[in-house]
Amino acid sequence: MPPLAPYKRELDYSYAPGFFPTIEALTNAPELVRRVLVSTQAAASDGLSRVEALCAGHHIRIETADKALSRLSGKENCFAAAVFTKKWGALSAQGPHLVLHHPSDAGNLGTMLRTALGFGYLDVALIAPCADVFQPHVVRASMGAVFSLRIHEYPDFEQYRASYPTHTLYPFMLKGSVPLAEAAAKPASPFALVFGNEGTGLPDEFLEYGHPVRIPHSHKIDSLNLSVAAAIGMYEMMKEQL
Amino acid sequence: MPPLAPYKRELDYSYAPGFFPTIEALTNAPELVRRVLVSTQAAASDGLSRVEALCAGHHIRIETADKALSRLSGKENCFAAAVFTKKWGALSAQGPHLVLHHPSDAGNLGTMLRTALGFGYLDVALIAPCADVFQPHVVRASMGAVFSLRIHEYPDFEQYRASYPTHTLYPFMLKGSVPLAEAAAKPASPFALVFGNEGTGLPDEFLEYGHPVRIPHSHKIDSLNLSVAAAIGMYEMMKEQL
Repeated sequence: MPPLAPYKRELDYSYAPGFFPTIEALTNAPELVRRVLVSTQAAASDGLSRVEALCAGHHIRIETADKALSRLSGKENCFAAAVFTKKWGALSAQGPHLVLHHPSDAGNLGTMLRTALGFGYLDVALIAPCADVFQPHVVRASMGAVFSLRIHEYPDFEQYRASYPTHTLYPFMLKGSVPLAEAAAKPASPFALVFGNEGTGLPDEFLEYGHPVRIPHSHKIDSLNLSVAAAIGMYEMMKEQL
Repeated sequence: MPPLAPYKRELDYSYAPGFFPTIEALTNAPELVRRVLVSTQAAASDGLSRVEALCAGHHIRIETADKALSRLSGKENCFAAAVFTKKWGALSAQGPHLVLHHPSDAGNLGTMLRTALGFGYLDVALIAPCADVFQPHVVRASMGAVFSLRIHEYPDFEQYRASYPTHTLYPFMLKGSVPLAEAAAKPASPFALVFGNEGTGLPDEFLEYGHPVRIPHSHKIDSLNLSVAAAIGMYEMMKEQL
């Protein structure tokens, strides 16, 4: 096996740092896990026993790799990591979609993936340019949700749109004409919620697509944080089914 | 004037890094601003003109301080900062309260303050131990919302409770008995939303307080991110008034 490289977008594999994301990888996508790294400091922990049992069940190799783990972890402690093969999913043609247009912040992206999984949005479209969904920090912030979602990156919005023409679009925009509660009272089926970049939101052309939604808030702030807006939108549009 | 120190919790002043938070400080709490630092790289920017006009109107000194700003900014660029006096507020006895019990993550705390301001929660109680609300990173993540809110830190929950005994409590808990939509259908007045620590949530004793609320989500995640849960709770409990 070749030595492990520091993470780069060009690699065909990445790392899921932390026991929780590692266990999620081994549970929900064991076929993608190449091996698991553990720290000598993890000896006899509950997390380690669980990881060992899962690896044994799937015949996945565990190795001690303190140096690779400390390189991965940055400021935070990291006692385990799954090395996994990157793989895009094909989105469902029926289920609700979360569409993220040019998301740029890795932490926000991870948080949105975790929220999506929690509220039953199993299909996520990323429109490039965007943060790297396989970056270890994103995988960690998602708490391993990446291993339970179907995620696909599109070079532009038109290619996503052409692939799923029957989804009714709900672009979330400060200038949206439909208050969220009104849109959520009777959501179209299937539907896709579309959120723009942290700093710039969605371009004005999205005002022409489907039902542009506004989350009402006071004028004392200029906008909500992206992961907050996406969470409120996902919750409200799905809450009858939760 | 004494030289500026690196930020510490013990100091009686802090820094609001960035043009947007600096403008919020000058607009909403000019009496707290001791002086404003700007970078030589900020010359002739729109932000600088706005800051200069506000400082002139309030007779606040502006000084060039590249070194102090680069120490403040860490990885991000920071071309301006307000130096401000820390001040706790007294919470309103009528309005809705946001109560944060042992929040530990600075970024989450800042995001929650911004969301609170956006949804009309102008009064925030922090229960120690908790992240330092005046830390520059929190001020920045709040986008300067700290300058428009009344915020008070209490040594324990009992002291908060004794100060505002008429607020009906809604503790948000995984084991909460009331689904959020039900609680939001007819909120008590006045009310307080209570959220626990990122890792541990609220202690079980909060199940005995008021109406313990649950945000329904799938079992595919173990919990929502704290700033996400708080945002959904604040939005849903206030949306009739937005």
